[in-house]
Amino acid sequence: MSLNPNASIEITAFRWVPEFAQGLVRDLRARWALEEAGLDYRVRLLDQERPPEYLLEQPFDQVPCFSDGKIKIFETGAIVQYVGEQSEALLPRDPQGKYRAIQWTYAALNSVEPAFINLLLIDRFFTNEEWAKLRRPGAVDFAKLKLKRVSEWLGDKEWLEGRFTIGDLVMTTTLRFLRHTDLVAEIPNLAAYLKRAEDRPAFKQALSDQVASYAANQPQEEGVAA
Amino acid sequence: MSLNPNASIEITAFRWVPEFAQGLVRDLRARWALEEAGLDYRVRLLDQERPPEYLLEQPFDQVPCFSDGKIKIFETGAIVQYVGEQSEALLPRDPQGKYRAIQWTYAALNSVEPAFINLLLIDRFFTNEEWAKLRRPGAVDFAKLKLKRVSEWLGDKEWLEGRFTIGDLVMTTTLRFLRHTDLVAEIPNLAAYLKRAEDRPAFKQALSDQVASYAANQPQEEGVAA
Repeated sequence: MSLNPNASIEITAFRWVPEFAQGLVRDLRARWALEEAGLDYRVRLLDQERPPEYLLEQPFDQVPCFSDGKIKIFETGAIVQYVGEQSEALLPRDPQGKYRAIQWTYAALNSVEPAFINLLLIDRFFTNEEWAKLRRPGAVDFAKLKLKRVSEWLGDKEWLEGRFTIGDLVMTTTLRFLRHTDLVAEIPNLAAYLKRAEDRPAFKQALSDQVASYAANQPQEEGVAA
Repeated sequence: MSLNPNASIEITAFRWVPEFAQGLVRDLRARWALEEAGLDYRVRLLDQERPPEYLLEQPFDQVPCFSDGKIKIFETGAIVQYVGEQSEALLPRDPQGKYRAIQWTYAALNSVEPAFINLLLIDRFFTNEEWAKLRRPGAVDFAKLKLKRVSEWLGDKEWLEGRFTIGDLVMTTTLRFLRHTDLVAEIPNLAAYLKRAEDRPAFKQALSDQVASYAANQPQEEGVAA
């Protein structure tokens, strides 16, 4: 358990989000990295309506932000990489191993995630829009192509580059954006890869701490939760 | 001029691409970073039909790949960061300056680029699809929101964090994905920011070298170019 109100590391997270987003919000990646590295951290919880001045910390109005007294940054890719620099459990020290891991972090966020988020938005936000109904088959095909590429690379390896790194942390949390579909389950080596990641004690702790906050801050009125 | 057939650094690029993609293909980012760092490089040109074994180098079948005898990686974010580690002109040395730059590199690729690529695909690939016509206004609004966020952060600063870094290199090449629209031109501080970037000698050299290859390898048949 690395949650510690007196920790020097602080991340931002949401006090509460609707159920479809619980376990997907990106502070999960920062929490998981911190757990893998064995670093204590505290959480600054934000309401869904962020104060306008939050844009000075996070120009895209998202979570998480990260600070540790030495640096203050946003973007989960940068945060997990920074945490990785402090723990060989997340980021190898040799240049090739280090940059292969960083490469997969970028690949997950730029070459894979947009296809999955696109499908998630179609299925969760734009469900009743005519364009979404027309576009969905193509969006599924595009997500499937990305999954095929990752699956073929992974083959029978345990992790993308043999050993667990920040690249796997970001890639597997990216695969979770498809949890409302069977697309990952349909590809045995990817399903097993995701399960290996989600079985890690550090992941379980991170997820449990994220959803504990939502459970404690569940809105009282039905209307707000809808 | 840093193109050098005997250089130890090699990147991959396309021999030729259709005109709408010329000046947008992502090896431009690697070339620009190498020019800023003053590093010689050579280019391995690929046909539009890549051999199947290229997937072993680049699992998403994209360009560029990068190798220098020490490491071998793909993904432009990772490549510009690695080149940045070798040149303070691209990446500050103090931890805060370094990670603010890395954060903007991730932000450009994950929080901004997907919205622009989405609009580019709607306008260039899916133009005649019914869903694309219905979706376009919403896609424009989403791209505008991203531009507003970057514009508000930039304010009257010259670069995102005051001085030029890999974050600006990746963000401004991301803005170029909207060059078929007036969306950037409509926001004076972003238009000036993009112009500052494109006026850098290293950018001009990189762009000129990229398109020189396309000009030299223009397909003979009209049908192929269409």
